[in-house]
Amino acid sequence: MEQLESLLKLGSLVDPWLEKYLLRDADPEFHEALLYPVRAGGKRLRPALTLAAALAAGGSIELAMPAAAAVELAHNYSLILDDIIDHSELRRGKPTVWRKYGLSTAILVAVHYRESISQALNDTRDPKLFSEIMARTLKLLTEGERLDVLFEQAGRTDEPYVVERRHRTVTLADYLDMVYKKTGALMETSCIFGALSAGVGEPVIEALGSYGRSLGYAFQIGDDIIDIFGREEVTGKRVGKDIEEHKLGNIVILLAAEELDGREREELLAILRRDVVDAHSVGRALELVSSTRARERAEELRRLYSKEAVRALSALPRNEGRDMLEALAEFVARREF
Amino acid sequence: MEQLESLLKLGSLVDPWLEKYLLRDADPEFHEALLYPVRAGGKRLRPALTLAAALAAGGSIELAMPAAAAVELAHNYSLILDDIIDHSELRRGKPTVWRKYGLSTAILVAVHYRESISQALNDTRDPKLFSEIMARTLKLLTEGERLDVLFEQAGRTDEPYVVERRHRTVTLADYLDMVYKKTGALMETSCIFGALSAGVGEPVIEALGSYGRSLGYAFQIGDDIIDIFGREEVTGKRVGKDIEEHKLGNIVILLAAEELDGREREELLAILRRDVVDAHSVGRALELVSSTRARERAEELRRLYSKEAVRALSALPRNEGRDMLEALAEFVARREF
Repeated sequence: MEQLESLLKLGSLVDPWLEKYLLRDADPEFHEALLYPVRAGGKRLRPALTLAAALAAGGSIELAMPAAAAVELAHNYSLILDDIIDHSELRRGKPTVWRKYGLSTAILVAVHYRESISQALNDTRDPKLFSEIMARTLKLLTEGERLDVLFEQAGRTDEPYVVERRHRTVTLADYLDMVYKKTGALMETSCIFGALSAGVGEPVIEALGSYGRSLGYAFQIGDDIIDIFGREEVTGKRVGKDIEEHKLGNIVILLAAEELDGREREELLAILRRDVVDAHSVGRALELVSSTRARERAEELRRLYSKEAVRALSALPRNEGRDMLEALAEFVARREF
Repeated sequence: MEQLESLLKLGSLVDPWLEKYLLRDADPEFHEALLYPVRAGGKRLRPALTLAAALAAGGSIELAMPAAAAVELAHNYSLILDDIIDHSELRRGKPTVWRKYGLSTAILVAVHYRESISQALNDTRDPKLFSEIMARTLKLLTEGERLDVLFEQAGRTDEPYVVERRHRTVTLADYLDMVYKKTGALMETSCIFGALSAGVGEPVIEALGSYGRSLGYAFQIGDDIIDIFGREEVTGKRVGKDIEEHKLGNIVILLAAEELDGREREELLAILRRDVVDAHSVGRALELVSSTRARERAEELRRLYSKEAVRALSALPRNEGRDMLEALAEFVARREF
């Protein structure tokens, strides 16, 4: 627990750097809206990964700061846009950017975040390399988000592209591909940025990247489990939001659908495909899901990826950075919020 | 006219480069939506500026291609988002991206465009410098768009930020500041990228940048004039769209409001501030505007900036590139579409 706290403390060191890049070339009238997303909270997990990876690779946190700022800005950039795409009204207990300021302002804030990422990357030790990796990562993230939306089973009647191209069947492999792109790629990049900031060679870069990738799977599977089985008094979130949002891109729902026999599978899918999923239907879907081994199997996968993450670290010498990353992977295997 | 045609031909050379960067790291299922904005048309004015500026600076068009692709991608990126912000349904005679594919897909396409810009910039002769300039330019563009929205006199009732912060008075200086950011900065950057690709020194960079800045003013003033006085059979656009959209950020409307006496000024502003501006009100606004010298004064400013642009070129030796840029500035001074 102590190492986990050290890790999160490390992440919070990035805050002044976020503000520095965000306020550069910004009109004072725009400052409040620009700072709102990063001041609304956030665990700073991705910059913590970059800084801990830098330490694990024998580097310094100072040299890794611009890269750490870049990954947290990238995370917030994607959240501002995801909240628009998912019509989400709350994030971290506060109104989302589009809800608070309006759609146009949210889009302009997002564009400004993206440019702040470039400015941060230009302060890293190899701007061209870091920016190439970031470009590829954000294209993957876009693709992951696109797939997540296409895995929904209803809704978005005003979006012809989505309605025409919905994926009606989603396999575990499809799910894992989507999750790597949506969540794993940026965590992988966060770790790789730490390694690159430390100036180490290929084997250490690969080990830390592999850790980040596995952590991403464990993290997203955990999010999915919490969405379906979380206790509202612990999470502060409504249970079953992914069912309401028609998501076959939630591993628990996906595994349950796989396991149910013909009639019950159809019943579960029919609920996901309803235009509006009311509270009663959410309850019935939870009942169906709970009658399967989906939860256990999802937990098993989460533990598996967490172990993979820890194992990837074995290539590194034991030190403070590695210990923090290990503690994080173990926490992610069992977190309930 | 011949030189103008050569310039536009030059711009069209960038098309395969746009596709190359856009399709990199893109799922085949996404290709159609990604190519839609660039295949829907466009004059390729900005890449033409980059390539002609490279020639004017004694460089080659080959070396300037990645930068030319970057500025055209940046232009399309901003248009995809502007069309969302302005609720525009048509662009180049075709449905806008959000109208055709839906809002979520349009946002994902825009994000992908931004990453393609980074990938193009990484193929320039100085990725760090080019990407720093692009980041600053896109922040300015964001700010210009923010101001343009805040200069509107009504509408956007679902956007608290805009409603609270509308600028009720807009001076000519405010207008020029907004136009530099919204239009001039990217044209300036397009020219500077050409100069930098040619590897020339500060005086030539500054001369070409200054040309691009002045051209931007002339170009946007021209757009504003065409919006109010264009002939639909020539432009293919509806006349008076900026009046319908409550825009005090159109120089003709702005100058007319300045010039009208108290009661008539109030009448014009009252029309702009109506929730819905019907055809009758547009007609009355046009009548009020036409009773002033706004059109002549706007034309005068347009010619002035065009001349400034030509004058900036005098620092350069006469060659094919310079001739094309000069022809463009002269065309922009009088274009009716």
